[in-house]
Amino acid sequence: MFAVIYHGPGNKAWEEVPDPQIIDDTDAIVRVDAVTICGTDLHILKGDVPAVTDGRILGHEAVGTVERVGAGVKNVKVGDHVLVSCITACGACRYCREGMYGQCLGGGGWILGHKINGTQAEKVRVPFADTSTYLVPEGVSDEEVLMLADILPTGYEVGVLNGAVRPGDTVAVVGSGPIGLAAIMGAKLFSPAHVVAIDLADSRLEAAKRFGADVVVNASKEDAVAVVKELTGGLGADTAIEAVGVPASFEQCAELIRPGGRVANVGVHGAPASLHLEDLWIKNVTITTGLVDTYSTPTLLRLVTSRQLESAKFVTHHFALEQFMEAYDVFARAAETSALKVVLQRS
Amino acid sequence: MFAVIYHGPGNKAWEEVPDPQIIDDTDAIVRVDAVTICGTDLHILKGDVPAVTDGRILGHEAVGTVERVGAGVKNVKVGDHVLVSCITACGACRYCREGMYGQCLGGGGWILGHKINGTQAEKVRVPFADTSTYLVPEGVSDEEVLMLADILPTGYEVGVLNGAVRPGDTVAVVGSGPIGLAAIMGAKLFSPAHVVAIDLADSRLEAAKRFGADVVVNASKEDAVAVVKELTGGLGADTAIEAVGVPASFEQCAELIRPGGRVANVGVHGAPASLHLEDLWIKNVTITTGLVDTYSTPTLLRLVTSRQLESAKFVTHHFALEQFMEAYDVFARAAETSALKVVLQRS
Repeated sequence: MFAVIYHGPGNKAWEEVPDPQIIDDTDAIVRVDAVTICGTDLHILKGDVPAVTDGRILGHEAVGTVERVGAGVKNVKVGDHVLVSCITACGACRYCREGMYGQCLGGGGWILGHKINGTQAEKVRVPFADTSTYLVPEGVSDEEVLMLADILPTGYEVGVLNGAVRPGDTVAVVGSGPIGLAAIMGAKLFSPAHVVAIDLADSRLEAAKRFGADVVVNASKEDAVAVVKELTGGLGADTAIEAVGVPASFEQCAELIRPGGRVANVGVHGAPASLHLEDLWIKNVTITTGLVDTYSTPTLLRLVTSRQLESAKFVTHHFALEQFMEAYDVFARAAETSALKVVLQRS
Repeated sequence: MFAVIYHGPGNKAWEEVPDPQIIDDTDAIVRVDAVTICGTDLHILKGDVPAVTDGRILGHEAVGTVERVGAGVKNVKVGDHVLVSCITACGACRYCREGMYGQCLGGGGWILGHKINGTQAEKVRVPFADTSTYLVPEGVSDEEVLMLADILPTGYEVGVLNGAVRPGDTVAVVGSGPIGLAAIMGAKLFSPAHVVAIDLADSRLEAAKRFGADVVVNASKEDAVAVVKELTGGLGADTAIEAVGVPASFEQCAELIRPGGRVANVGVHGAPASLHLEDLWIKNVTITTGLVDTYSTPTLLRLVTSRQLESAKFVTHHFALEQFMEAYDVFARAAETSALKVVLQRS
């Protein structure tokens, strides 16, 4: 089969490699029908994720069709049309039993396209298939479901639910890339008073409006803290969601919140931030971090099926699987191409 | 009357000053029967709290007898024996209505001995008396109740409850001063598997054992992270409570916790800490900060009355009111005197 192979920082190729095989009896082999590229894949290609080594197939998001299952697979059947989640769950360890699948101690967690071969391929081996795939419901398209492989549960769990967004809240979302937009879309489910999108690019702020932000702030031109205080009687945001992954945006979130407010960090960080405890110790703030656990995936599937979440809005570009190098190029140049999520489909 | 007057960094005196008067009709004038000194008073005397200006009476903890009440005071009566809490609550603002009295927007919060004259005096004016005092229950001593003016609710709310301590947890408490000991005492109410006290002084660690820590670590001699990992199958503490107030102890808390763990900051900080988001972003951690709200004070009063909390254990030294300068000296030299809380009583 063909797959996107990582060959060290800056290097990748669509190459022919051996088909994946069942290794453990809880594995399934899934034929990839639709697959996407994540901002994290770009981080990997910069060399930021040393666990990804030369020869690894990239990708941790797919919708596909089950071709084979190991003898220990109980629920997933050959021919099933399934979502392959970015998080693999052994289902048996302490963390899995608490629903914290992202922290799986039994060999799962974020492993696809990271510690083992991933989904940017014609086929993928999915470990712990029973607890790491979700049956695609009737009446929804592959691309709609594909958005639930990572960005929607990440924005919803790590941003909206960790940030404890409640009706009437003012929610500030720093960063309007795909994850920020997923957080905006998720926050809207809780009927906030205001969703304030903060970014440095007007084009991304336009997207934020389409996803439900009622106030947008270009932080290169306006003081976001002043805008949010003006909206909230001088107090600050109830929740600030960090969806960039740099120290400055985290620190801005800590400035945006009111006493008693919450900062939910979603961004993938490569450097420490300053935590201004000399201001914050007295303010009753809560700061959360997290890798997605995907415990919300069944709920999000229902919301997509019932059209309460329009997940297809993320998809800006379509490609055939063979066009992976072109798709990477369009996605990496998002500032010019306005790409949010690109979808590659089996032709 | 006589009172402890602040005269700028390093200077204080037991001086004669005019008696306090009713200013607002919701005020009460309380005769001080028992009063203590807080670590925060020492911070003030170092000049760390600029809102405290020359001439201010210090102190935010007292038990006393109501001498006069304003016309608008509904529940508190002359002759009532009351706890004067470190937190004054207007009772009507948004934060007070949510039980977040420490963040009161109506002129309350931590004001005694800070923005207005405090309790280290023969008499004190208590604003919003109906919502800022608590009737002392029958059968408990003034000094037992006095520990609920600040340290017990602070350790309990900001440490134990914010840290969400649960049965079976391993709780690490960094700092075994009075606030750390209050956190240990509060954590024990939740039947943790282990309470690990971490400090640099063996004498404080001895106190930690008396308050319920089953493991003590002198961090100048032993690696606290290694000890906690050994206790927890390599994972780390469920909750780490910061009870010192310096960047290093906060950063140690962030290292002590397991994936999914919680850091509850109680310490009063004067400088920023480094938040290692490059490690923490993926770990599902929750960090909280807070000034005490005292919403737990009624509960803690019940626990003291029923002898489930032995609050008198904090009291190591007794003085008469006139001995305030001596009491400050003993408290400030806690490393030599082993002082935890000093109590000054009307003779």
